[in-house]
Amino acid sequence: MSTEQTIAEIGEFALIDLIAQRLRPADSATVPVSIGDDSAVVSARGDQVVACLDMMTQGVHFRLDWSSANDIGRKAAAANLADIFAMGATPTALLVGLSLPESTPVEWVLELADGLSAEAELVNVSVVGGDIVRSETITISVTALGELQGRTPILRGGAQSGDVVAVAGRLGWAQAGLLMLQRGFRSPRNLVSAHRVPTPPYELAQTGRNAHAMIDVSDGLVSDLGHLARASNVGIHIDSNSLTVPDELAATASAFAGDAMQWILTGGDDHAFAATFSDALSVPTGWQIIGHVTSDLAGVYVDDELQLTRGWDHFAK
Amino acid sequence: MSTEQTIAEIGEFALIDLIAQRLRPADSATVPVSIGDDSAVVSARGDQVVACLDMMTQGVHFRLDWSSANDIGRKAAAANLADIFAMGATPTALLVGLSLPESTPVEWVLELADGLSAEAELVNVSVVGGDIVRSETITISVTALGELQGRTPILRGGAQSGDVVAVAGRLGWAQAGLLMLQRGFRSPRNLVSAHRVPTPPYELAQTGRNAHAMIDVSDGLVSDLGHLARASNVGIHIDSNSLTVPDELAATASAFAGDAMQWILTGGDDHAFAATFSDALSVPTGWQIIGHVTSDLAGVYVDDELQLTRGWDHFAK
Repeated sequence: MSTEQTIAEIGEFALIDLIAQRLRPADSATVPVSIGDDSAVVSARGDQVVACLDMMTQGVHFRLDWSSANDIGRKAAAANLADIFAMGATPTALLVGLSLPESTPVEWVLELADGLSAEAELVNVSVVGGDIVRSETITISVTALGELQGRTPILRGGAQSGDVVAVAGRLGWAQAGLLMLQRGFRSPRNLVSAHRVPTPPYELAQTGRNAHAMIDVSDGLVSDLGHLARASNVGIHIDSNSLTVPDELAATASAFAGDAMQWILTGGDDHAFAATFSDALSVPTGWQIIGHVTSDLAGVYVDDELQLTRGWDHFAK
Repeated sequence: MSTEQTIAEIGEFALIDLIAQRLRPADSATVPVSIGDDSAVVSARGDQVVACLDMMTQGVHFRLDWSSANDIGRKAAAANLADIFAMGATPTALLVGLSLPESTPVEWVLELADGLSAEAELVNVSVVGGDIVRSETITISVTALGELQGRTPILRGGAQSGDVVAVAGRLGWAQAGLLMLQRGFRSPRNLVSAHRVPTPPYELAQTGRNAHAMIDVSDGLVSDLGHLARASNVGIHIDSNSLTVPDELAATASAFAGDAMQWILTGGDDHAFAATFSDALSVPTGWQIIGHVTSDLAGVYVDDELQLTRGWDHFAK
């Protein structure tokens, strides 16, 4: 069987067999039942499971000429794993649904599986189930599962007046990379890579489990802190001077008449973590303090100015 | 805000708010954290979660002129809930991913949510999270979660030589209904309804928890028992005389020169349950004995003839 074939040529069952062989095997202690039964059975110590589902579609979340199948697999896994970490949970497994045109090369699907596996391996989990169906366009649906092991989940609604606000991870990089691709460039390479494959700082999310509230920055810092502010009914103040502009962003903004601070404040898809902590001493190493929480009208204030944007809208005109 | 609008006109956040209002509220004991955070937190008593993911796409699994949005929502939920019950688990929650064209009417999406909720309500669960993205075609990705409450999962690999084989639920109805729709008919109504909305016998799956092995019949009886036979490395013998042909199927087969027994043996999408039990006395009321398990070469034998089909293939030519 050649992987130059299309998925229509080899058929659904052979494709599933090939993918199952290619995926990282699940750890049998965490996943007593993996691919091959009606459902998977996955560890959920603490009698609770943490679960999220994110979808990515061709042309909206990725373009086949901009991202490799491996990139797309990694990005789909990362977006979901970040949501599990943002709850203070430990990921246990991924389930993946793929809708694919019949003309999709088998090799493309296997590289996608490699990307999913590679990202999952960073946090010691595997793909344990899913579905493959035929469609006109490629859609990737990932469900991530996690366990709390008896801990209390970290919610968006836990921020308190007097908290400090901190972030871990990159901001604005994916947005800058996307702008470069949209203008026909393939560089700067580290920005374009940031669009293709986010690098959520999973370890920092774990060290930040003493946070009062946490969120994964997927839509943009202001937008996602806005969700947190409304859920907690607090004012979240960001001091833009505390947001260092990395050289990479500054140079690119300068070359393209862009606004690096705007990318940092509103760019999505980097999957940094934003959280509030009781005080500055409670902020773990590697997290950067960017503001504070007040009892002001719920919302996000940048340099004391209330921000009105709600961030990226998939259906906005 | 009028529901005659398209989803592009109202935007993603307003759409999510409308859907969240329309969905059946989750029981806070089973779902301490529902829609509105990075992830949901769901009960998983017994320190394990059972999870599956099924996708449905427009034109392949449903047609908008054949099925209402409510039908499609019910079918998507039912297909996944059946997979949870087939493991001997109790469902706890659904997560739903939707990819939708911008021109989709808001009302269509809300009726889909009603269908998902209505099916979930049959087994006391709710939609607790998900994602909505833009796409050219409609894709519905449902993840169902369940808990074992300390029980051992019922796997495909548990069948033993000497077991009896039994089924609970309808077989061939959805297939016959689909054939009627394909020929331009909208009747017989109960067959067409069976294609639109399957009715898995959830209660019978629960009474069958003493089964050695169980599977949800989604691809077709022979195909799905084939999965079970290979996983258990046993021969599964079906006696076609034990498979009663309902009057509805017999009449339609007669009128259209169809083969009702073929529909029963190979028709998918009814989501009946097939299982093996240690002996006839162990088969619960409501389950019908249709055969027995031997140590023959792994496979399915109908009236002693080994069947070679693997069932419905999404990518077959």
